[in-house]
Amino acid sequence: MTEGKDIADPEEPTDAGDRAGLAARFPAGVLTTDPDVVAGYAHDESRLSRRSLPWAVASPANTEEVAHCLRLAAEAGIPVVVRGAGSGLSGAANAPTGSLVLSTHRMTSILEIDTTNRLAVVQPGVITGALRAAASEAGLFYPPDPGSVAFSTMGGNVATNAGGMCCLKYGVTGDYVIGLEAVLADGRVLRTGRRTLKGVAGYDLTHLLVGSEGTLAIITEITVRLLPAPARASTMVAMFASLSDAGRAVAAIGEDAVDTSMLELLDRTTLGAVERKAHLGFDGDVAAALIVQSDALTSADELAAAEAACRRCGATEVVVSSDPDEADLLLQARRLALPALEALGDCLLDDVCVPRSRVVDLVEHIQRVGVEEGLEIGVFGHAGDGNMHPTIIFDESDDASRTAAMRAFDSITACALRLGGTVTGEHGVGRLKSAWLLRELDPVSAEMHARVRHALDPQGLLNPGCLLPG
Amino acid sequence: MTEGKDIADPEEPTDAGDRAGLAARFPAGVLTTDPDVVAGYAHDESRLSRRSLPWAVASPANTEEVAHCLRLAAEAGIPVVVRGAGSGLSGAANAPTGSLVLSTHRMTSILEIDTTNRLAVVQPGVITGALRAAASEAGLFYPPDPGSVAFSTMGGNVATNAGGMCCLKYGVTGDYVIGLEAVLADGRVLRTGRRTLKGVAGYDLTHLLVGSEGTLAIITEITVRLLPAPARASTMVAMFASLSDAGRAVAAIGEDAVDTSMLELLDRTTLGAVERKAHLGFDGDVAAALIVQSDALTSADELAAAEAACRRCGATEVVVSSDPDEADLLLQARRLALPALEALGDCLLDDVCVPRSRVVDLVEHIQRVGVEEGLEIGVFGHAGDGNMHPTIIFDESDDASRTAAMRAFDSITACALRLGGTVTGEHGVGRLKSAWLLRELDPVSAEMHARVRHALDPQGLLNPGCLLPG
Repeated sequence: MTEGKDIADPEEPTDAGDRAGLAARFPAGVLTTDPDVVAGYAHDESRLSRRSLPWAVASPANTEEVAHCLRLAAEAGIPVVVRGAGSGLSGAANAPTGSLVLSTHRMTSILEIDTTNRLAVVQPGVITGALRAAASEAGLFYPPDPGSVAFSTMGGNVATNAGGMCCLKYGVTGDYVIGLEAVLADGRVLRTGRRTLKGVAGYDLTHLLVGSEGTLAIITEITVRLLPAPARASTMVAMFASLSDAGRAVAAIGEDAVDTSMLELLDRTTLGAVERKAHLGFDGDVAAALIVQSDALTSADELAAAEAACRRCGATEVVVSSDPDEADLLLQARRLALPALEALGDCLLDDVCVPRSRVVDLVEHIQRVGVEEGLEIGVFGHAGDGNMHPTIIFDESDDASRTAAMRAFDSITACALRLGGTVTGEHGVGRLKSAWLLRELDPVSAEMHARVRHALDPQGLLNPGCLLPG
Repeated sequence: MTEGKDIADPEEPTDAGDRAGLAARFPAGVLTTDPDVVAGYAHDESRLSRRSLPWAVASPANTEEVAHCLRLAAEAGIPVVVRGAGSGLSGAANAPTGSLVLSTHRMTSILEIDTTNRLAVVQPGVITGALRAAASEAGLFYPPDPGSVAFSTMGGNVATNAGGMCCLKYGVTGDYVIGLEAVLADGRVLRTGRRTLKGVAGYDLTHLLVGSEGTLAIITEITVRLLPAPARASTMVAMFASLSDAGRAVAAIGEDAVDTSMLELLDRTTLGAVERKAHLGFDGDVAAALIVQSDALTSADELAAAEAACRRCGATEVVVSSDPDEADLLLQARRLALPALEALGDCLLDDVCVPRSRVVDLVEHIQRVGVEEGLEIGVFGHAGDGNMHPTIIFDESDDASRTAAMRAFDSITACALRLGGTVTGEHGVGRLKSAWLLRELDPVSAEMHARVRHALDPQGLLNPGCLLPG
């Protein structure tokens, strides 16, 4: 959180005449410099991350137009920030002053669903939920389900290697990407990977681009593998009178090798906020709840084993259902977690990941920090893979509160590192955590990051200041 | 196959006095320059790949000694070739003249099996089968099962991103690697990835190293995720009177979304060779056999669906068993495929991968090439993921036969590219296919490969001539 509060970069002098001449060379209908429109593309959904005003927004419709835009930007030495739905939470799409925002919102074609080879090819602006629906219609399954699945784009998901609730069983976005087309900073088109499920010809540039947050190339086409459709899921909610009991249950479910497709935790603060919003029946004695799902064909057995593990660890109440409507109701607490916390004040949402065995240590630290800083901090997230979202409630208009929130954020992120974890499980580094990245990486790794970045973008025009500090 | 037959690099002049002085600076007991010993480390198991005689073999016991060796090599400008078990099939461990072979055979510790977080940490010299056994004892499962599982090393598996028969369901080696420690060409230690299952902090340098064949860094420690142990597998063998029927069955099983953990194909030539060796009862009317396995809890249902797909596509006979001993017998034909073909003459083993829907086109092309060149070519492999191993039988002592074998190899590899596939599914590029890599990659990708390689190894000392032509 060293980036501090929302601040603008200093204005860089630009030659208006040069820029007007440049604008005229963009493909017809692609460029907007209207300040009102541009302002709407200036930043993502992150809080307390650096913000400024870009020069213009380009909305290319195809790879050729993306390449055209990048050639012009390279020639003029203008930084380029790629943007999907703008729903990112780390400031990766916050555009530097005078930069060009390249929005993928016109590149929304699902180019192919191949049922025999179980793969799909999409443009980067395709909404992830739309791909999931199209795969489902073809009897197949695209597992990644970030919380933003209904509005975030495949390009954004790939650029941040987005996660979600299914990761415990199905992995993250990158686990499905087998090939990419991308445009380099100089406008040349790069193809990586392949359409086959296996292949070891050359370096894995595909996964070098996955999670690179628009700093190495602009992704213009994505090939993902699909899975057979899963069985109907069964769902369980287990309630605990102490957080450490819930933490032990997370570890116990892991050790019992239960085939779960979801293992989410909500703490007392989060449950209280949800209860105020929706009255689902969590009383004040519930210190933590686990929501467990299995989509295995043997889901009843899996949940029986998970229930036994929870009861062994002191669960006070367990509810199981294989009915989809009832399951929806059980999931509602999880879905409401963030909106319910947001109703309590300004929210600073963190995203750290620790080994599953250390989830309880992380959560206890977060609670101590909340007490010390006098802040309410809700904790919820993907306990099954150790990826938690501590959510700090603060008052952005109050300097003291904002400073306390930033201290709490830093303390929690540092704790994740101490516990053998990472500063970001799925939201990405962006501009919010670029200084934190340098604390996670050793200096040799940081130097290799910079060298690899320079290898692909020698001019340093792609998303400068994102991922590595500028 | 542009590398031609086994040939030595021209001798590079070296100053014997300098080398002796250098040798004395290696850690005690680590270096051997005895020509008889060194000759045993000069090349891997590939055929018709470039071979020479290295200067010396270093056998460090730990990361510090690896770093020490690399610092000395960098100082003296000596190329370094890392070597696991030497069982590679692409010449990636063929050492250039005067180079230093760095063998990992003393780095054989399984450092950790963490059952709660389901991960293992190993040194690179650990035999893959040993890790699988250790995971199994802990109630867990390390899926990758290359054909060499009993003798190849984890370091070699990671460096080539090794596959195997389980890939259809479980993916390849890289899908399990979550963190690496590696030593750069200049002797500095690089740590990549993490111990958590999720994490998006920075570029995915882990998977940049996976499959990089010793050209970017020397891997000294590997962290892999483990899975819960699978259910006991059921196995099916289906026989077909025509190869195209078998090919259609492969596609049909894929389209029916059957949960199979193995889907192997053997053609008439391979079955004939196996029959001559083991008399398993495949008569001459069988043009192709599929071996299908499912380790799902619902394996009986899965194999019933697979059987139905095979019968629909004209299978003449289907045998199913859930008995482990019977399954072993059914698998014997697959296990004997390569040794049986090797009994017919010298074998040039190819490794191409095409989209599953094109397997039958590939196999038909291979058969045509065999007729045209007057060569027997056995075809077997992982039909479920399109990764086939055409095996050309030839006489290495006969120039005409060798030339015909190379033409056939080139024709098959070119066909895989035409069918939308890759020149190597799992054996790697090495020195055997470095020219083919440049046919698969577009020029922009090839340039990015070279730039990334230069970023990590500016002196070009790590495995020169491997992966990209020298």
